[in-house]
Amino acid sequence: MTISYTYDVATESYFGFFKVLFRWKGSVWKLIHRELFMWLVLYYTVLAIYRTLDEERKKIFRSNIEHFINFEPSILTFMLSFFVTTIVQRWNNVFTNMGFIENAAYAVSSFMKNGEDVRRAQRTVIRYLVASQILVMRSISIKALRRFPNYESIVTAGFLTKEESTIIQNTDLSYDSSCVPIRWAIQVLRHQYRSGNFFSHSVYRATWKEVSDFETHLSRVRKVDWVPIPLAYPQVIFFAVRLYFVICAFAKQYFDLDDDDARYVIHYYFPIVTVFQFICLMGWLKVAEALLNPLGEDDDDFEVNFLIDSNIYTGMLIIETSKPPPLKPDLFEDRN
Amino acid sequence: MTISYTYDVATESYFGFFKVLFRWKGSVWKLIHRELFMWLVLYYTVLAIYRTLDEERKKIFRSNIEHFINFEPSILTFMLSFFVTTIVQRWNNVFTNMGFIENAAYAVSSFMKNGEDVRRAQRTVIRYLVASQILVMRSISIKALRRFPNYESIVTAGFLTKEESTIIQNTDLSYDSSCVPIRWAIQVLRHQYRSGNFFSHSVYRATWKEVSDFETHLSRVRKVDWVPIPLAYPQVIFFAVRLYFVICAFAKQYFDLDDDDARYVIHYYFPIVTVFQFICLMGWLKVAEALLNPLGEDDDDFEVNFLIDSNIYTGMLIIETSKPPPLKPDLFEDRN
Amino acid sequence: MTISYTYDVATESYFGFFKVLFRWKGSVWKLIHRELFMWLVLYYTVLAIYRTLDEERKKIFRSNIEHFINFEPSILTFMLSFFVTTIVQRWNNVFTNMGFIENAAYAVSSFMKNGEDVRRAQRTVIRYLVASQILVMRSISIKALRRFPNYESIVTAGFLTKEESTIIQNTDLSYDSSCVPIRWAIQVLRHQYRSGNFFSHSVYRATWKEVSDFETHLSRVRKVDWVPIPLAYPQVIFFAVRLYFVICAFAKQYFDLDDDDARYVIHYYFPIVTVFQFICLMGWLKVAEALLNPLGEDDDDFEVNFLIDSNIYTGMLIIETSKPPPLKPDLFEDRN
Amino acid sequence: MTISYTYDVATESYFGFFKVLFRWKGSVWKLIHRELFMWLVLYYTVLAIYRTLDEERKKIFRSNIEHFINFEPSILTFMLSFFVTTIVQRWNNVFTNMGFIENAAYAVSSFMKNGEDVRRAQRTVIRYLVASQILVMRSISIKALRRFPNYESIVTAGFLTKEESTIIQNTDLSYDSSCVPIRWAIQVLRHQYRSGNFFSHSVYRATWKEVSDFETHLSRVRKVDWVPIPLAYPQVIFFAVRLYFVICAFAKQYFDLDDDDARYVIHYYFPIVTVFQFICLMGWLKVAEALLNPLGEDDDDFEVNFLIDSNIYTGMLIIETSKPPPLKPDLFEDRN
Amino acid sequence: MTISYTYDVATESYFGFFKVLFRWKGSVWKLIHRELFMWLVLYYTVLAIYRTLDEERKKIFRSNIEHFINFEPSILTFMLSFFVTTIVQRWNNVFTNMGFIENAAYAVSSFMKNGEDVRRAQRTVIRYLVASQILVMRSISIKALRRFPNYESIVTAGFLTKEESTIIQNTDLSYDSSCVPIRWAIQVLRHQYRSGNFFSHSVYRATWKEVSDFETHLSRVRKVDWVPIPLAYPQVIFFAVRLYFVICAFAKQYFDLDDDDARYVIHYYFPIVTVFQFICLMGWLKVAEALLNPLGEDDDDFEVNFLIDSNIYTGMLIIETSKPPPLKPDLFEDRN
Repeated sequence: MTISYTYDVATESYFGFFKVLFRWKGSVWKLIHRELFMWLVLYYTVLAIYRTLDEERKKIFRSNIEHFINFEPSILTFMLSFFVTTIVQRWNNVFTNMGFIENAAYAVSSFMKNGEDVRRAQRTVIRYLVASQILVMRSISIKALRRFPNYESIVTAGFLTKEESTIIQNTDLSYDSSCVPIRWAIQVLRHQYRSGNFFSHSVYRATWKEVSDFETHLSRVRKVDWVPIPLAYPQVIFFAVRLYFVICAFAKQYFDLDDDDARYVIHYYFPIVTVFQFICLMGWLKVAEALLNPLGEDDDDFEVNFLIDSNIYTGMLIIETSKPPPLKPDLFEDRN
Repeated sequence: MTISYTYDVATESYFGFFKVLFRWKGSVWKLIHRELFMWLVLYYTVLAIYRTLDEERKKIFRSNIEHFINFEPSILTFMLSFFVTTIVQRWNNVFTNMGFIENAAYAVSSFMKNGEDVRRAQRTVIRYLVASQILVMRSISIKALRRFPNYESIVTAGFLTKEESTIIQNTDLSYDSSCVPIRWAIQVLRHQYRSGNFFSHSVYRATWKEVSDFETHLSRVRKVDWVPIPLAYPQVIFFAVRLYFVICAFAKQYFDLDDDDARYVIHYYFPIVTVFQFICLMGWLKVAEALLNPLGEDDDDFEVNFLIDSNIYTGMLIIETSKPPPLKPDLFEDRN
Repeated sequence: MTISYTYDVATESYFGFFKVLFRWKGSVWKLIHRELFMWLVLYYTVLAIYRTLDEERKKIFRSNIEHFINFEPSILTFMLSFFVTTIVQRWNNVFTNMGFIENAAYAVSSFMKNGEDVRRAQRTVIRYLVASQILVMRSISIKALRRFPNYESIVTAGFLTKEESTIIQNTDLSYDSSCVPIRWAIQVLRHQYRSGNFFSHSVYRATWKEVSDFETHLSRVRKVDWVPIPLAYPQVIFFAVRLYFVICAFAKQYFDLDDDDARYVIHYYFPIVTVFQFICLMGWLKVAEALLNPLGEDDDDFEVNFLIDSNIYTGMLIIETSKPPPLKPDLFEDRN
Repeated sequence: MTISYTYDVATESYFGFFKVLFRWKGSVWKLIHRELFMWLVLYYTVLAIYRTLDEERKKIFRSNIEHFINFEPSILTFMLSFFVTTIVQRWNNVFTNMGFIENAAYAVSSFMKNGEDVRRAQRTVIRYLVASQILVMRSISIKALRRFPNYESIVTAGFLTKEESTIIQNTDLSYDSSCVPIRWAIQVLRHQYRSGNFFSHSVYRATWKEVSDFETHLSRVRKVDWVPIPLAYPQVIFFAVRLYFVICAFAKQYFDLDDDDARYVIHYYFPIVTVFQFICLMGWLKVAEALLNPLGEDDDDFEVNFLIDSNIYTGMLIIETSKPPPLKPDLFEDRN
Repeated sequence: MTISYTYDVATESYFGFFKVLFRWKGSVWKLIHRELFMWLVLYYTVLAIYRTLDEERKKIFRSNIEHFINFEPSILTFMLSFFVTTIVQRWNNVFTNMGFIENAAYAVSSFMKNGEDVRRAQRTVIRYLVASQILVMRSISIKALRRFPNYESIVTAGFLTKEESTIIQNTDLSYDSSCVPIRWAIQVLRHQYRSGNFFSHSVYRATWKEVSDFETHLSRVRKVDWVPIPLAYPQVIFFAVRLYFVICAFAKQYFDLDDDDARYVIHYYFPIVTVFQFICLMGWLKVAEALLNPLGEDDDDFEVNFLIDSNIYTGMLIIETSKPPPLKPDLFEDRN
């Protein structure tokens, strides 16, 4: 489920941001808390081991650490920032092409004559489009796959009939199964045109175009899934950030002062600067990881199933709304 | 209300920028003055507490601070800059898709025959489009919701009749209410086409396309609202900037010199470098917060209500302008 | 006037860049020379005051300055670079949508029958389009406003007749005046279609589309003007850069050495590093300021008036060019 | 073959990233392991030579190195980050324009009458489109060239007949060979139109448009190949990164301590910070190199041959699917 | 000529990059070698002068230099990186809009009846389009101007007849000459339509659209040339980079050690770090300079003349290909 927080930021106000900061669901806190905890365990383990060492070994430990004084995450910051930008664009691309049925449904409902047969054809086209979307989504989204684990579930939900499901399963689909219902939709339209149920060839073409655009959107989502960002790009970033903090668990220890004063210094107990870096960098990295697969099961991933329900509902509603209210004079007449 | 300052920067001049700098409404000063004030209160409180400490504790305090000498906001700068870029693109996207009625109105007014019935149909289509826009805007903009708190207010303003309002309220709208008037508009056009009031099927299709595009724009705005940028992204940035300055209120204190000279040093009284950073970073962050919800109530947010008024006025005016001035020879004849 | 320098950089050559560097008009030198001069005055004033101080105060002055050793403009550099990128995209957007008449004129001239009446209608459409552009440009560009300070000047220049001007002035234009001539143009086309002067409904629609696109471009420019980048964004940057250099006029003084050697050190006389920063940052800022309002009066702003003249001239020329040269065999026949 | 890892990142989880990190195929490890190995060889060779030197020369060596203390890769990081962004956009551009046959096939199958002749024409159009794609891909992708080393192989695979292949080979193709089959496809459509096999001129035009769009996509890929990013841009980056690490092999040696303690310091044995930089920078550079030619033979390059097979299969399937299942009432009727 | 290096990077391999690195034509080495040489001359001149000074002046020299220890090019790096991004987008924009004739030629050849008159009209349209392209390119590309220095050369090459050339020269072309042949092309099409040589009004409109699109592309290139990036932007960057290195020739001298050891230190003889910076920054700057005018005469600029030849050849070939090979059954029948 996407997490909405728009109302909280309607006005930029002093306390507005608190509402945003201290949410849990979909929050950065939820994303990083486990890793932060594990890192702190590592950090304090190293600290505890250090305490058990004799003086000589402590000195060796410290001279090892001296070499990391200038070990700063500036390269990581660069890589992360550009990587996140690339990922956000991709995420946006997927979102824009999820497949919203309105335009196709408006076309199908506007350009055909009345009649029970036509109505059935229109409803069938909408159904095929949504069925096609289900087939695409099943192959790329775990959520959709969980809802529709097999063809029976699609039949039960009413998106395909038993016969249609059988035909699809009998087709050799080594390449792509999702386009079968779209093809049927296009054939239904063709059949209707040949039966003279469209107003003209021009609007038939317009309807075809809208249905074809729906397919284009779906296939773009499929392609984004088919060709991910080359593995090496996220890999080098995911690895480098983690390696950085593993090294920091050793290198950013505070042993400089072993005299009495040290016990009053916060760093002696808690690595505040490194934790600050951890929240920033790991939080940012987690945003990237969450966005990397926008159709997954993170709190913030797209609500694929909601979209499917919305599409079938809205599409059918548009088909059925065939009579507008009677025309009446409006109140703006005299204003002009 | 958006704040216009274009004339002030018409020419890049030496004093031009002063006019821009010292505005209040919609300014960065208005956005950050409270937070800056609160930060200064925090800073001077820490300073005052420090002054009351005995020598030993002062020393401990100072040795704590020593560890923050290199605590610089470079990661924050990175995160902010990329975040602001993402937000600006989103803001631009919303702005471009707010729904301007001109194209649809030109199509409706150009492609239909004359006649009182047709005129009423044309006016009704415009009204439905704006009504649809109102329904969308109510669900995403507090300003619009405040102007149209319920269906009665829309009926009173003349955008819907009582009957239409009743029908909409009776529809099960668990998914989306805004598309009902758009559907009516499309059905009105269909009815007009069937009555032979369009010049041809080709221009009927063109009119349909423009109305459908208006709907597409509205639904894009709705989708941007539906799927915000994942919560964790703004959260990590909003938090990190504030945390940075809370730490700075301690870490950037100036206690290095406690001898007599110190009293002549500006930093002893005012943390000038940190305040400079505060203005830059917090100012930038506030720009991001203000842009995050472009339909909110900040000084600089879009004037949704002005747009609605402008759309109904312009739309109706375009419908009514049916006779251009008589054709006459122009003055450019002999030039060619 | 835009400043062209394309030929100077046709080939990347060693001396090519000198030609580009030492231009004055539209140059960075012209943009920053006054500010640089004023900054140097400030700098040397501070220096002169310092010289008049007694030893004790000199010491206080110096200890104040010590705190700014690491005061570097890295945050500014970040903010500027992203701000300039945003501004350049906006500038590009305005430029692309300035309204070039060619496509509309080609459509109007291609799709209608011959005849004196038709010719007059075609010329009128072109005239209305340019008149509409003038009305838009007047409201957003000082240059255009200066050329057309009132409706009389537009009538005198021949873009509107007296009657048309009266009608526009009598319309209640609280919302937008520019679209009146566009509406007339569309009505003229509609009238021509009804009189049977278009070849077919299909090309009538195509002509309508091109005229409508012209209007869309104009209204995009108007919208960019209507909703500027939120004031706080340029404000925080414009302010921060200036504040930085005001602080630098104090902080980057060179008083470290007061012995005899100092008089041989360049920094003693001229703050070379800070001036280098000044040229870079202020030059960049000035580019941003100049681009912020691309329709202003800077050397590099768009030549709005040239565009208007070019549009009316080219548009009319396209209308009048009705007979191509006679068809003849070409020389490429035997090559294939 | 593109490497898919989408399921591994479906949910952002703590152990999810391990699956992504420790893949080999297409991984950053595979990309950099040889270079990292060679760099380590160089590093240890320098170290070994140093050990053999006498005291005086060791001192000279060390004083040479002192000058590189601040030698940091920040310029490289900048250049790499912007270069990778440019490359990713280009890669995306190629991917989007690879040529997917669905839209053209839907058009060809929807808008023509039934009949054996028509069916053969439709199949031929699909075949010509894919043949054209093969000719384009052969000239820019080694994989495709390897599969289709000559015209015989294309004939054998069935994409061209012997006669067609002869005609193409006899054409003077100093400019471009790929467009010949596209031209045939367009001529086949024209012939079908003249024979009255299209429903109307309007849908003939729509079919033409889809075929023409397929050609446009192919020619965009060809142009991206024709005009690469100017050589100097990758050159300066590829060179600078390698030069940086060659210098580091000398400059980042650890000889500071030659006393007994040194043997306990990790840096004495392994240059951990420089290796960390190596993984980040060289890994990033390798991503850029791999993306620079997205049609090459890297693990992550596009599966051109799969696309060709998929296109011919899907295209033919769409042509053959001429009868949708019979229309039946759906289950959603009563829901509305 | 654009420099192709795609095959060299087909597979990311260890030695692959060497092939790319050590090219000369279009390489970064060719672009920077002169400037690097001149900078080294300057550097060693300063060094030589320093050697001739007496001890006192040497000391003064050194104390001057001390102030530049932290003089680093980080601002330059920022400015360059964003400037290069802007320039690359512009370069891409020019490239995309160079004007490729395929689409227009396909339209012209598909939608008209057969006949010698029609064929001549089609050939003339292609010729006019390319002639128009030549006129545009002459005004913005030195290469094209060199090939077509006057109208005679265009007539000789066969792109215009003598009469056509005379008409163009007699037109008052204070605004724009390139659109005259385009206008003729559009009039030729109009004439053909009126003579009934198009299949229908719908395909006439489609042909008009493609020709009009060709014009739109050309005029975009013309506009990019007409309104360059504001002069001040490249100026401040070109100047700052050069100034930086001029200062470095003094500031990065190595005089720290004047004792015997110094003669063994590489920096004593060669400023290796500054030369590394020079290659990076100046190489990057040169990429920007080369891309700034993509139609110039650099090694990597677009091959305008090749494009013109390719367009006329391909365009004519498409017109002449009127008969596809006979339809035959294909080999994929049984696979499905």
